[in-house]
Amino acid sequence: MNPLIHSWPGHEPLAAAIASRVHGEIAPVSLRRFPDGETYVRLMTLPKDRDVILVCGLEQPDDKVCGLLFAADAARECGARRVGLVAPYLAYMRQDARFNAGEAITSRTFARWLARAIDWLVTMDPHLHRYRALDEIYPIPTAIASSTTPIARWIVENVAQPLIVGPDEESAQWAAAIAGRVGCPWIVLHKDRHGDRDVAVSVPDITAWPGHTPVLIDDIISTARTMAAAAQRLRQLGAVPPVCIGVHALFCGDALPTLRAASPGVIATCNTIRHQTNAIDVTSEIAQAAADLHARVQTAL
Amino acid sequence: MNPLIHSWPGHEPLAAAIASRVHGEIAPVSLRRFPDGETYVRLMTLPKDRDVILVCGLEQPDDKVCGLLFAADAARECGARRVGLVAPYLAYMRQDARFNAGEAITSRTFARWLARAIDWLVTMDPHLHRYRALDEIYPIPTAIASSTTPIARWIVENVAQPLIVGPDEESAQWAAAIAGRVGCPWIVLHKDRHGDRDVAVSVPDITAWPGHTPVLIDDIISTARTMAAAAQRLRQLGAVPPVCIGVHALFCGDALPTLRAASPGVIATCNTIRHQTNAIDVTSEIAQAAADLHARVQTAL
Repeated sequence: MNPLIHSWPGHEPLAAAIASRVHGEIAPVSLRRFPDGETYVRLMTLPKDRDVILVCGLEQPDDKVCGLLFAADAARECGARRVGLVAPYLAYMRQDARFNAGEAITSRTFARWLARAIDWLVTMDPHLHRYRALDEIYPIPTAIASSTTPIARWIVENVAQPLIVGPDEESAQWAAAIAGRVGCPWIVLHKDRHGDRDVAVSVPDITAWPGHTPVLIDDIISTARTMAAAAQRLRQLGAVPPVCIGVHALFCGDALPTLRAASPGVIATCNTIRHQTNAIDVTSEIAQAAADLHARVQTAL
Repeated sequence: MNPLIHSWPGHEPLAAAIASRVHGEIAPVSLRRFPDGETYVRLMTLPKDRDVILVCGLEQPDDKVCGLLFAADAARECGARRVGLVAPYLAYMRQDARFNAGEAITSRTFARWLARAIDWLVTMDPHLHRYRALDEIYPIPTAIASSTTPIARWIVENVAQPLIVGPDEESAQWAAAIAGRVGCPWIVLHKDRHGDRDVAVSVPDITAWPGHTPVLIDDIISTARTMAAAAQRLRQLGAVPPVCIGVHALFCGDALPTLRAASPGVIATCNTIRHQTNAIDVTSEIAQAAADLHARVQTAL
């Protein structure tokens, strides 16, 4: 039997792209909250003896994790052969160490919950900083879709003489990969973080690239404080207004007005999280990674 | 070493009552949300080789379950011997069957999550309807504190000639137990539910108890539609305004004004969930059940 694809609201185009690659059937999942705040889940097509693929982004994870894990459990109880999760954004990757005694390393606990409920996981560019690979915390088959090619393509089409700029050391991996694909220079700034929203930035010499447009790239735009501080420092040094690119457009609270105030240039994000700044379509990269892992897991049996 | 007691906001008096019974130490837990909605948890006292008791009510469960399970995992990773949970209100007990094909039986999934993270569980009067005991779904030691005695005491002190009234068949267990303790008559109404908030009620003959004040008792006041409909039917039949008692004061949305509009009499609830209608103190019942199970689990080793 062909796989069933269940999409959470907003991910219908990605679900359709996966379905066409795995010859799957899009099937509705009914999700609602009872008045007391409990989550109700119903799979509208019974998955008996079929593979199930759940397509659910994990931004604002605490709101979603109960519904997602209830759906995965319901699929298994209703006879699904295998349950895969395609999460364009994967949460709880940033708390990857115990920085103070007694702290929860939430990335590990969260990974354990997911890995007990699902059989495989696909995401796009998870925040791998202290972990080098998802399998350090996820004991199930995983695959990572990369945004490097669609971002590089967008830069080639939209920026004449780009200088890729990573706003902090953690972003060096994205900056280097994308600059390599574009065939342009790249630098990385140095960030001092004093709190969730308080960030200072120092900039290396950029006079070596006159006439270049800085293209700031980060994996996650959350409060946008890091990118806003970087954009402001670049402008103080006389650069033209930078282009700001993010893979995952979390944009918490007043992040978008904050970034626009600091940087009047273009802001472009990938559509892993639906947002008004989405300009770079990564649907086919995620769908292909999902189809490939789905096929690989089939073959392994 | 004596046990560590971590209280979620609002449960400090219960935590203190447990601490005094188990010779425990109240220890703070730091809980907050990052701007992106992820939960941060830090145990401010390291629990190495100590028992840990978490005191966390589970009303609005999806908001709390991540923080609770992160705290339990952090305690274990920091060397706690055992982690117990005292949840004055236990969520996800009402979805106890698959009413439609493909539905998640969330009570079972939720119980599995909790039971993997904690070693024992104490709650007050969970909604046992199709399940007869918690151990049908919780594979860990559990204990149930009963509100029967404090509710009966409150009725004796506050209502002259009570007639205990259960608003529906599911409430017969509470109504019968409390009437038995008070030493007064009891009846149960018949409920037809047409939706989350749409309820019709039929009433048996109440003329057999002239001069009695109806005391409506239910375990959970959620939307209050059931209790409001029951109060209205009683008043149509000429009864004096009923007293309304609930064990767990969820009071979702406009539940309190709805109930007040239907029933001008006293509304009294137990303090398992903090609410302005709390009038019946059940702290010592829950604390004693927690101390007893804590001691029993110790002895079992």
